[in-house]
Amino acid sequence: MSLRSFAERYRANLFESVIPFWTRHSADREHGGYFTCLDREGRVYDPRKYVWLQGRQIWMYSRLYNEVERRQEWLDMATLGMDFLLAHARDGEGRYYFRLERDGRPSFFQRKPYGAVFAVLALAEYAKTGAGRRYREEAEALFWRIEEWIRDPGLLGRAPQAGGLAFRSLADSIVLVNMALELDEAGGDPRYREVLRGCLRAALEHEDAERAILLEAAPLTAGADLRKYPDGRLFNPGHSVEACWMLWQAAERLGAREEQARVWRILEGSLELGWDREFGGLYYFMDVEGRPLLQLEASMKLWWPHAEALYAVTLAYRRTGDRRWLDWLERLDEYTFGHFVDDPRYGEWFGYCDRRGQVTHTLKGNHYKGCFHVPRALLLCIGEIEGAAGPGG
Amino acid sequence: MSLRSFAERYRANLFESVIPFWTRHSADREHGGYFTCLDREGRVYDPRKYVWLQGRQIWMYSRLYNEVERRQEWLDMATLGMDFLLAHARDGEGRYYFRLERDGRPSFFQRKPYGAVFAVLALAEYAKTGAGRRYREEAEALFWRIEEWIRDPGLLGRAPQAGGLAFRSLADSIVLVNMALELDEAGGDPRYREVLRGCLRAALEHEDAERAILLEAAPLTAGADLRKYPDGRLFNPGHSVEACWMLWQAAERLGAREEQARVWRILEGSLELGWDREFGGLYYFMDVEGRPLLQLEASMKLWWPHAEALYAVTLAYRRTGDRRWLDWLERLDEYTFGHFVDDPRYGEWFGYCDRRGQVTHTLKGNHYKGCFHVPRALLLCIGEIEGAAGPGG
Repeated sequence: MSLRSFAERYRANLFESVIPFWTRHSADREHGGYFTCLDREGRVYDPRKYVWLQGRQIWMYSRLYNEVERRQEWLDMATLGMDFLLAHARDGEGRYYFRLERDGRPSFFQRKPYGAVFAVLALAEYAKTGAGRRYREEAEALFWRIEEWIRDPGLLGRAPQAGGLAFRSLADSIVLVNMALELDEAGGDPRYREVLRGCLRAALEHEDAERAILLEAAPLTAGADLRKYPDGRLFNPGHSVEACWMLWQAAERLGAREEQARVWRILEGSLELGWDREFGGLYYFMDVEGRPLLQLEASMKLWWPHAEALYAVTLAYRRTGDRRWLDWLERLDEYTFGHFVDDPRYGEWFGYCDRRGQVTHTLKGNHYKGCFHVPRALLLCIGEIEGAAGPGG
Repeated sequence: MSLRSFAERYRANLFESVIPFWTRHSADREHGGYFTCLDREGRVYDPRKYVWLQGRQIWMYSRLYNEVERRQEWLDMATLGMDFLLAHARDGEGRYYFRLERDGRPSFFQRKPYGAVFAVLALAEYAKTGAGRRYREEAEALFWRIEEWIRDPGLLGRAPQAGGLAFRSLADSIVLVNMALELDEAGGDPRYREVLRGCLRAALEHEDAERAILLEAAPLTAGADLRKYPDGRLFNPGHSVEACWMLWQAAERLGAREEQARVWRILEGSLELGWDREFGGLYYFMDVEGRPLLQLEASMKLWWPHAEALYAVTLAYRRTGDRRWLDWLERLDEYTFGHFVDDPRYGEWFGYCDRRGQVTHTLKGNHYKGCFHVPRALLLCIGEIEGAAGPGG
């Protein structure tokens, strides 16, 4: 199959199945914001508003409006979420809740910075719709608060414990890279490039050199033996793959050629180790030493690692021309469209299969699956394939 | 198969496979306390100490010493855990951590009362080994603090939110029943009976009358519509079954005959709805309206609901003589011994199967599975079958 024909398929899936599903079913016209707990047919099975997914969906619709077409419907969708987010998602100290009631009253605070992370992405992208400079300023201010929260989690109410393991989490470096890539502008504040440089270095310290993968944890103090803990042996293939494309973009932005090549080696290692050779698909969690895992869902196949991988290998193929990546794209595409993509009658993707690839949950959205990984990956793939010349373009 | 032959099998499994596994592999002779993250062969894959499981294992070994045989080895095991628990598991305000480092330094606090719940069980049972009145006094004092924490979770650092759902959790009523059953003594403090009475009434308010099951949540305010939330539709078959035997014991203690009969109807309803008619075994989570579940592991089969069910139906059969319960025992026993019970080479049970009954994790213990549900259920079954006269005894 030619690369062009992948792009055509992704375009059809994105604009005829995925985005229409969210536009049709997720808007709460009464209270604002988005429903994300939607069943196969799009019916709401939990009316509460999950803050990560409010920010992610605002970002997505703003991005469509900014980069695909100035369609009023998309801007209206973004505004519906943004007004709700700013009215309800923060506490008196500017920290973001995890979950709100349908009407916006807070119901759960998570002691983690990720609600705010997706608010930064939302604010920065929404600012570009013409909504105004104040959204951009809010994004920047929030970015630096998050940077502080990550350095000192006590600020979010998670007091450090005497026996807590001293490790850095891959997620923290990656969300900083993601936000800094979006906020960094030619001629703008040079500190975002410094963040990119620091996080690229920090993220690459997560590499298990023998296997060429990124582990979830890296020791904060040299010589600390994290490998005796499950946390220190944890490999999340989807996360490692997602990190690769973000780190490659950061390395490209910084002109760091050696790191770009290193990231492609890690991408290959992550796919090779993460792929289930018996039943296909990428595992959710693995222990690098093959020891038991604490996560019950470890052997399940989730939609988002596959969506991330589709884009990562598309990017790798277009930028290196190495045929191996096209083989990976074919393998990943076949598994993904064969297991997660629902028929056009209802639209969107399923999110969860068991190890054998059988769908275990027919839902299209929940408190973590919203309008984000699928449309982002499809849009990025299309852009990469149809963009500037490259192999198979 | 006769009831006696079940008891013989359970006795062999308990004393030749399960308890030897924990005695051999879980004791930390260097720092005290118990390792519970043990792989199939009993090797430690996480050296940290999980506080729920410290308390549970102290209770188990103390109970064996108190009710089976005054074996020094069992008392020593209990003491190894108790000394560690009292030295390390509490913060300055007497609240219990969730996880400690191997050497006892705290590493995670959970904002829930359950660590303390299992400490109460441990202290009360350990007091009966001859260890002394101070353990009993500590158990009683802690019980009343937990009762307060359950009424006001803000005391554990989980501030109430304006949009939080007003519901009572089945777990809270059940742990209070469990502790009060252990602390209540003839001629002792009459308040434990009052707690039993209140919790029996509260727990039965969780009944979905149409299906004769206990739901996880019950509204705190009359007329509140919890069913529009996944939390309000959540059915955990193992939990409902475990609650049944505890509530039956509470009802028996209180001489509440009507409630005793009602509990058997709920036990039957829970097994009927919770049983997977296609692949066998009890589901982990279900939505009573068949709507999507937020829990990824919902369709998995876990060891503990099956262990709880073995005892619940044994109790029901012995106390009612109704042949239906023997049929259930046969069905449950066949599934359990066919899927979870490992060969005697390594001992103990597996904990986790996928929906089809395939073992997904070969571990014998983790941060939730320790020396508790399996040996408790086996010991209770043996006691019930071999105890005072009844059908099949």
